Amino acid sequence: MTKLIRPSGRAADELRQISLETNVTRYAEGSCLAKFGHTHVLCTASWSDSVPGWMRGSGKGWVTGEYGMLPRATHTRGSREAARGKQSGRTQEIQRLIGRSLRSVMDLAALGENQITIDCDVLQADGGTRTAAITGGFVALALACRYLVEEGVITENPVRKQAAAISVGLFQDTPVLDLDYPEDSGGEGDMNVVKSSDGGFIEVQGTGEERPMTRAELATLLELAEKGCSELFDAQRAVLEEDD
Amino acid sequence: MTKLIRPSGRAADELRQISLETNVTRYAEGSCLAKFGHTHVLCTASWSDSVPGWMRGSGKGWVTGEYGMLPRATHTRGSREAARGKQSGRTQEIQRLIGRSLRSVMDLAALGENQITIDCDVLQADGGTRTAAITGGFVALALACRYLVEEGVITENPVRKQAAAISVGLFQDTPVLDLDYPEDSGGEGDMNVVKSSDGGFIEVQGTGEERPMTRAELATLLELAEKGCSELFDAQRAVLEEDD
Amino acid sequence: MTKLIRPSGRAADELRQISLETNVTRYAEGSCLAKFGHTHVLCTASWSDSVPGWMRGSGKGWVTGEYGMLPRATHTRGSREAARGKQSGRTQEIQRLIGRSLRSVMDLAALGENQITIDCDVLQADGGTRTAAITGGFVALALACRYLVEEGVITENPVRKQAAAISVGLFQDTPVLDLDYPEDSGGEGDMNVVKSSDGGFIEVQGTGEERPMTRAELATLLELAEKGCSELFDAQRAVLEEDD
Amino acid sequence: MTKLIRPSGRAADELRQISLETNVTRYAEGSCLAKFGHTHVLCTASWSDSVPGWMRGSGKGWVTGEYGMLPRATHTRGSREAARGKQSGRTQEIQRLIGRSLRSVMDLAALGENQITIDCDVLQADGGTRTAAITGGFVALALACRYLVEEGVITENPVRKQAAAISVGLFQDTPVLDLDYPEDSGGEGDMNVVKSSDGGFIEVQGTGEERPMTRAELATLLELAEKGCSELFDAQRAVLEEDD
Amino acid sequence: MTKLIRPSGRAADELRQISLETNVTRYAEGSCLAKFGHTHVLCTASWSDSVPGWMRGSGKGWVTGEYGMLPRATHTRGSREAARGKQSGRTQEIQRLIGRSLRSVMDLAALGENQITIDCDVLQADGGTRTAAITGGFVALALACRYLVEEGVITENPVRKQAAAISVGLFQDTPVLDLDYPEDSGGEGDMNVVKSSDGGFIEVQGTGEERPMTRAELATLLELAEKGCSELFDAQRAVLEEDD
Amino acid sequence: MTKLIRPSGRAADELRQISLETNVTRYAEGSCLAKFGHTHVLCTASWSDSVPGWMRGSGKGWVTGEYGMLPRATHTRGSREAARGKQSGRTQEIQRLIGRSLRSVMDLAALGENQITIDCDVLQADGGTRTAAITGGFVALALACRYLVEEGVITENPVRKQAAAISVGLFQDTPVLDLDYPEDSGGEGDMNVVKSSDGGFIEVQGTGEERPMTRAELATLLELAEKGCSELFDAQRAVLEEDD
Repeated sequence: MTKLIRPSGRAADELRQISLETNVTRYAEGSCLAKFGHTHVLCTASWSDSVPGWMRGSGKGWVTGEYGMLPRATHTRGSREAARGKQSGRTQEIQRLIGRSLRSVMDLAALGENQITIDCDVLQADGGTRTAAITGGFVALALACRYLVEEGVITENPVRKQAAAISVGLFQDTPVLDLDYPEDSGGEGDMNVVKSSDGGFIEVQGTGEERPMTRAELATLLELAEKGCSELFDAQRAVLEEDD
Repeated sequence: MTKLIRPSGRAADELRQISLETNVTRYAEGSCLAKFGHTHVLCTASWSDSVPGWMRGSGKGWVTGEYGMLPRATHTRGSREAARGKQSGRTQEIQRLIGRSLRSVMDLAALGENQITIDCDVLQADGGTRTAAITGGFVALALACRYLVEEGVITENPVRKQAAAISVGLFQDTPVLDLDYPEDSGGEGDMNVVKSSDGGFIEVQGTGEERPMTRAELATLLELAEKGCSELFDAQRAVLEEDD
Repeated sequence: MTKLIRPSGRAADELRQISLETNVTRYAEGSCLAKFGHTHVLCTASWSDSVPGWMRGSGKGWVTGEYGMLPRATHTRGSREAARGKQSGRTQEIQRLIGRSLRSVMDLAALGENQITIDCDVLQADGGTRTAAITGGFVALALACRYLVEEGVITENPVRKQAAAISVGLFQDTPVLDLDYPEDSGGEGDMNVVKSSDGGFIEVQGTGEERPMTRAELATLLELAEKGCSELFDAQRAVLEEDD
Repeated sequence: MTKLIRPSGRAADELRQISLETNVTRYAEGSCLAKFGHTHVLCTASWSDSVPGWMRGSGKGWVTGEYGMLPRATHTRGSREAARGKQSGRTQEIQRLIGRSLRSVMDLAALGENQITIDCDVLQADGGTRTAAITGGFVALALACRYLVEEGVITENPVRKQAAAISVGLFQDTPVLDLDYPEDSGGEGDMNVVKSSDGGFIEVQGTGEERPMTRAELATLLELAEKGCSELFDAQRAVLEEDD
Repeated sequence: MTKLIRPSGRAADELRQISLETNVTRYAEGSCLAKFGHTHVLCTASWSDSVPGWMRGSGKGWVTGEYGMLPRATHTRGSREAARGKQSGRTQEIQRLIGRSLRSVMDLAALGENQITIDCDVLQADGGTRTAAITGGFVALALACRYLVEEGVITENPVRKQAAAISVGLFQDTPVLDLDYPEDSGGEGDMNVVKSSDGGFIEVQGTGEERPMTRAELATLLELAEKGCSELFDAQRAVLEEDD
Repeated sequence: MTKLIRPSGRAADELRQISLETNVTRYAEGSCLAKFGHTHVLCTASWSDSVPGWMRGSGKGWVTGEYGMLPRATHTRGSREAARGKQSGRTQEIQRLIGRSLRSVMDLAALGENQITIDCDVLQADGGTRTAAITGGFVALALACRYLVEEGVITENPVRKQAAAISVGLFQDTPVLDLDYPEDSGGEGDMNVVKSSDGGFIEVQGTGEERPMTRAELATLLELAEKGCSELFDAQRAVLEEDD
C-alpha cells in the first residue's frame, strides 16, 4: 500500500480533514455542519410531536432523513430538484439510507410519539456526501434528543449508540479510505459503509463500477471502513462532550 | 445450521424452486419469466436504435432497467404507481440496481449505438423480486443480443459474462439463502448480492434490519450468496443453451 | 359475408380463441387471466373494507377499475406510465369504462360498505384489450364476491347478472366480430360493446375511423356484438361453475 | 310520446334554444360562442404552422381539441384543473372526442403542415357541454380555414363536410333529444352522437346509467339524434353563410 | 402632457372604456364581467361553508382568488395550464395579489366561518388583466356578500370598503393611466396599484422595465392611479346600487 | 421617530448588521454569503454558454434567478419543495423578482450569448430574505462577470451599475428600515424596494398588511429605502474592491 499516490496525497487509510461543527443554525433542535475535506453538509434535526399516520397510537417515535444538494454544490450546476418537480432516484436512495441508518441506533419506544427529521443539505460536494450526511446527521440527532430531555418532552434519552458512515473503494486497484470526487469517479469500485459504535455493520453498499470485486477485496474494504468509522466515532464523541 | 426450521422447510443454503422460462411474450426481442418460488417476474428486453442524448456520437450502447409491481402482486393491494403519478424511491432504487448490474457484464462498445431496455414487472411477489428481476433480466438481455446478431444489427455479441443475483440474510440469527417474504420481514438483516459469472461481486447491499451485523456474519453471507449465484448461473446456461 | 378473408382467416362472426383462466394469482380475492387470441389481460379483484370518502355512511359499496399495459405488451415498446408520471387519456378512458360496466351488474347495497378494485393489466396486446379486461374483470369480480360471502363478510352475493364486452367493426367494409390489431388499425370503423346477460346494452362506443358509418351498419354491428357477447357469457359461466 | 313532461317543458324531440354566435373574440382565427340553452361554450380556433413531431414531413396537417370548464360553470364550484395539476379523465376523454370528430370532416392533406387547435371552454354548464363544444368547434374551425385560404396560407379549403353533435337519452323511459342537466342526471341512460353532414355517424357513445338499454331503444335514440343533428347542420350553415 | 399620442388616442390620464356587467352567470353567488377596453375578465364569487384547515375554529372567514387565462385570450395561443400540469409563476403571483387585495377590505370576523372564492378568468387580454380582475372581483364579492345576508347565512355585511385596481406607467417617458398591451410592452416601466375606497393604498407593485424610475416619477404615477381608482370606485358603486 | 422601541433595539433608520462574504464556495464562478442580521442567504453565480431557446441567435445573454429555503431555515420546519414536487407561489414570485432586478443593471448584449444563473439559498431566515438575496446575488453576479472577462469568455464587463434591495415598513405606525421577522409579521405594512446605484427605483412592492397606507407614508418609506440601499451599495463596493 506504500507506493500509491492518491490525488490528494493522503495515505490509503487516511481520512480527509474531518470537522463536525455543532449548533450552526439558530432554530433547529440540533444541528451540525459536517465537513469531510471539501464536502460540506449542513445537518439539522427538527422535532415534531406528530408521527406518520401509520404509527399513531403505537407509542413509538420515528426518525426520518431528507437530503438535498444545492444546485451549485458541484463543479457544474445541476438543476434544482424543486424546479424540476421531483427528487431524483439518487436523492431518494440516499434519504432512505439516512433514515434507516439513524433509526437503527435509536430506541424508538423511548422517543415516544415524537418525530425527528434530519435534513442533510449539501452546500459543497467533493465525494462522500451521504457518509458526511449520516455522520453529521447523527450529531444533530443526538443534540436534539438531549434537548428534548432537557425540555422535558421525553424522560429518557433514546439514543442507544452512535452511527457513522464512510466510503471505501478501489483506486488503481488499491483499497483506499474516504474517497474524494476524483477517486470516486476514477476508481474501480466503491462501498459505503454505515457502522454503529458497538462494532456492527448497519449498512454495506458496494458497487464494482469498472470491474467486479473479489471476496478478498470486499474483506479488506470492510476492514478499512472499520478504521475510518472508529475515528469518526471519536470525532462525534468529542463534539458531543464539548457541547454537553 | 442443522436445527433451523425455515418457514418453507428449506435447508439454510437451499434456493427456492427456480424456473427461467424463455420466449414468453410475442413481441420482445428477448423475454424470460423468472420464478423464484412464488416470486414471479416477467422480464422483457426491448431494442431501440437510439441511445440517451448524452451518449450520442460515443459509438457505445446502453442498457437500462425499469421495474414495476402489479398492484395486487402482494398480500394487500398497493396503489398503482402510474395513478399516484410517481415511482417510489424503492422502485427507482431497484431500477438503478438492475441497470448497473446488467451493464457491468456487457461490452457497450460492441453493442454499438443501440439501447436495450429491460422491463421487469412483478406479477407475484414473495420476497426477492429484485434478485429474480436481475437473474431473469440477464436471460432476456442475452436472448435479445443473440437476436440482434442474427438480424445483423450488430456483428459481435456484446455479452461478456453472466449476471445473477440472490438474497441472503440472518433468520433467527442463522445465515440463510434466498429469503422468502416471511424470512425477509422477520429476519435480523439481509443482503442482496449480484455476481458475475467470472466470480466477482458486482453489487453488495446489506442492511442490518433488527441489529447490526458482524464482520464474520457478512463473510458467511457472501459465501452463501456465492453458492446461490453459482446455481443460478447453471440455470441461466441451461435455458440459454436450450434456446440456442 | 362469405368472401372476406380476414387476416387471421376467421369467419366474419367468429371470435378469436377465448380462454378465461381463473385463480391465477396467489393473493387476490378473485383473479382471471383473460385471453382473446394473442391479447392477454391479467385481471385481479381486490377487496377493501373502506369505500371512497363521498360514499361513507351510505351503506353501499363500490367497484372500480384500473388498467395498465406493460411497456412491452405491444410491437414496439411504449413508455411506462409510472415513469412518465401520468396515465394517458386512453388509460383513464378505459378505466372509467371498466368501472361503469362492472358496477352496472352489481347490487351495490348488497355489497355493503366494501370496495372491490379490479386491476386489469395487459401482458400482451393484439387489439381488444378493453373488452378482454371487462370480460375477465367480471370473472375476477364474481369470484371475489363469492369469496366474500364464504368468508362471511357479506351475506348475499351482490352480483346480479354477467357483464361481457366485445369489439366489432368494419374491415374492408364488412362487419366483423372481435377485431385483432391488424383489423383494428386497418379497418374503417369500430365499436366496443358491453352487454349484460339479461340482453341489454350497458355501453356502446363506436367510432368511424376512416369514414362515418351508416345507421344500417350500426345495426348490423350491434347484432354481431350480441352474438359475440352471448358466447362470452357461456365461457364465463363455464369457468365460474367449474370453480364453484 | 305525447304525455311526457320534460323538466323544461320541451317536446321529446325538441332541441333547446340553439345559438351560434361567431367572431366573439378579437384574436382567434375563428371563434364561436355556442349556446344550447343554458350551456354556453366558447370555442376558438388557433392556427399554428407547426404540427406535432410525429407528423413532420408528412405534408399533412392536424386538428386537435382542448376542453376546459371554468370552476364556477356549474351549480357548485369545482376545483380548477390547473391548480390541481392535472386534467381529469373526463376532460381528456372529451378532448379526444372533439379532436377525432373534427378531424374526420377535414382533408388533412389539403390543410398542409398546419395545425388548428380548437379550444372549447365551458362558461356555463347545463348538460351537453361536449356536444355544444363539437358543434361550435366546427364553426370556429370552418371560419379559421376560410381565413387561412383568404390569407393565402393554404390554397384549398380543407373542410369537406360539417360535423355536429347532440345528446339523446332515456328520461322516464322515453327517448328524448338534447338532455339538459336534470334529464342527464335523472335519466336511465344517454348517448352522445356525432354526425357528419353527409348522413354518417362519426361517433356513438351510449351508456346505460341506471339500466341497460335494448337494441330497439338504441335504434330510436339514433333516429332522434339524426333529427337533432340535422337542425344543428342548418344552424351552422346559417351562421357560416351570414359570415361569408 | 398634452403632446403625447397614446396608441389608443387616449389622454394620458384617461381610462379605457370601463364596463362592469353584473349577474352574468346563472349559478355563482355573485358575478361580474369586467371590461377595461378589450380586456375582458369574467369574475365569479363562490360561497362555501368550509374554510381552510388552519382557520377552522377561528370564527373567521376567508376570501381567496384564483386566476386563469383562456389559451386564446391573447394574440398568439398560450398553452393551457391544466394541460401543462402547473400554474405559472405569473398566475400564482396574480392569484395571491387578488386574494390579499380583496381580504383587506373585508371584516373576516363578520364573514363567520365562510369562504368566498373569487375566480377571475380572462376571456380576452389587452393589458391590465389583473387590475380588471380585482376591480370586477370586488363587485362579484360584494354581490355574494349581499346574497349571503339576504339568505340569512350571515347577519351583517362584511364588506367594509371598496377595492379597485389600475395600472399606470411610463410610455415614451410620460406617465399614463391604464396601460393597454402596446403601452405595457413598449413602455419604460409600469406600476399596478390597488386602492381602497377610504383613500389608502393596499398594494403598489412597480417595475422599471427599461430603466429605473425616479422618486418623482413614482409620485406622479401614484397620483394618476388615485384618479383612476376614483373613477373605478364610482363605476362599482353605480352597478352595485343599480343591482340593489 | 425617537421613542420607538424596535424589538431589536435598532433606530428606525438603522440596518441590521450587514455582511457580504465573497468566494464562499469552491466551484461557482462567483459567490457571496449575504447576512442581514440573522438572515443568511448563500448566493452563487453559475455560468453557462447556452441561453434559453427563445434567445438563441439574438447575440444577447440572460441572467436568471432561482430561490430556495432550506426546510429548517425557519422557526418551525417547512416542507421541502423538492419533496412536495412543486415550488410555492411565493418562491416563484421571489425568483422572478431576483431575475428582473439583476437583468436591469446588465448590458445583456455585452454578455454575449451566455447565461448566468443566480442561486439564492436561504440557510437561515429572519425576515428580508429576498432583499438579502438580491443584494448578495448582485455581488455573485459581478464576481462572475469579472471572472468571465478574465477568462476571455467576454471582452467587456456587462455590469452597468449596482443593484441592491431592502425592505421598509410600518411598525407601530412608524416607518422603519430593514424589517426583521418580528417586525415583518407584526407590522401594519411593508415594502420591498430594489434600487440601482444611479439612484433609480427598479422595483417597488408595497403591501398594506393590516391597513392601507397613505401616499405620505409611501413617500417616507421610499426615502428610508434610499438611505438603506445607499449603505448597501457601499458595502457591495467595499467587498468588490477588496476582491479585485
